[in-house]
Amino acid sequence: MLGRLNHVALVVPDLQAACAHYRDVLGANVSAPQSLAEHGVTVAFIDVGNTKIELLEPFGEGSTILPFLAKNPSGGMHHVCYEVDDIRAARDQLIAGGARVLGDGEPRIGAHGKPVLFLHPKDFFGTLIELEQV
Amino acid sequence: MLGRLNHVALVVPDLQAACAHYRDVLGANVSAPQSLAEHGVTVAFIDVGNTKIELLEPFGEGSTILPFLAKNPSGGMHHVCYEVDDIRAARDQLIAGGARVLGDGEPRIGAHGKPVLFLHPKDFFGTLIELEQV
Repeated sequence: MLGRLNHVALVVPDLQAACAHYRDVLGANVSAPQSLAEHGVTVAFIDVGNTKIELLEPFGEGSTILPFLAKNPSGGMHHVCYEVDDIRAARDQLIAGGARVLGDGEPRIGAHGKPVLFLHPKDFFGTLIELEQV
Repeated sequence: MLGRLNHVALVVPDLQAACAHYRDVLGANVSAPQSLAEHGVTVAFIDVGNTKIELLEPFGEGSTILPFLAKNPSGGMHHVCYEVDDIRAARDQLIAGGARVLGDGEPRIGAHGKPVLFLHPKDFFGTLIELEQV
């Protein structure tokens, strides 16, 4: 079921500063930031060739990453996203295996315009996992 | 400077259980665990096609990941590792950019038998970064 690593998401407190730092100090290929109001994030992508790093900053007062940043004011590693071929089949297999899907269990359209689900980090040793149908 | 994402490292409290769970519930391609006494870890790799996930469990009482597990008893995301062509040139460029290299600044031989360095997470928005010369 588990496909390629689509991205690793890192939360940062100041996206402009983070983009400049990754570009200037690490020589990274960083995209222009985009605000995604419906996802409560402003995001920039770092293309590392084989996958992407997503730098995330909260957008708006209801942003779901605000609690993470309150707990980790410097920022930190937030989630990993794996690709799957069929997200509903993946979900059914996960639930049968005892894993919990966050929310109501229905895939929603994620930041890349594709169906996504998040799995409970307590079921995966403290790591928040996103699945994206590609 | 920044090359491909070599791996994402996830610390787990029980590697056998984590390997079984990733294999059985996520259908992941998980290697047999290997204990690396000199690195203080037992490691298993998940091959996701475009990169690797490393599951790490502390090995021995001096393991450098024991404090992480004490703070995060369920486990969690530990570091990301990027590839570089020339680790000493990368180090010099990083230091010139104001980033701190952990330890004495000399590359050491990492878990894959290649020269590695770790960068201070406070200089990268809470994310621990490993660089590996490939």
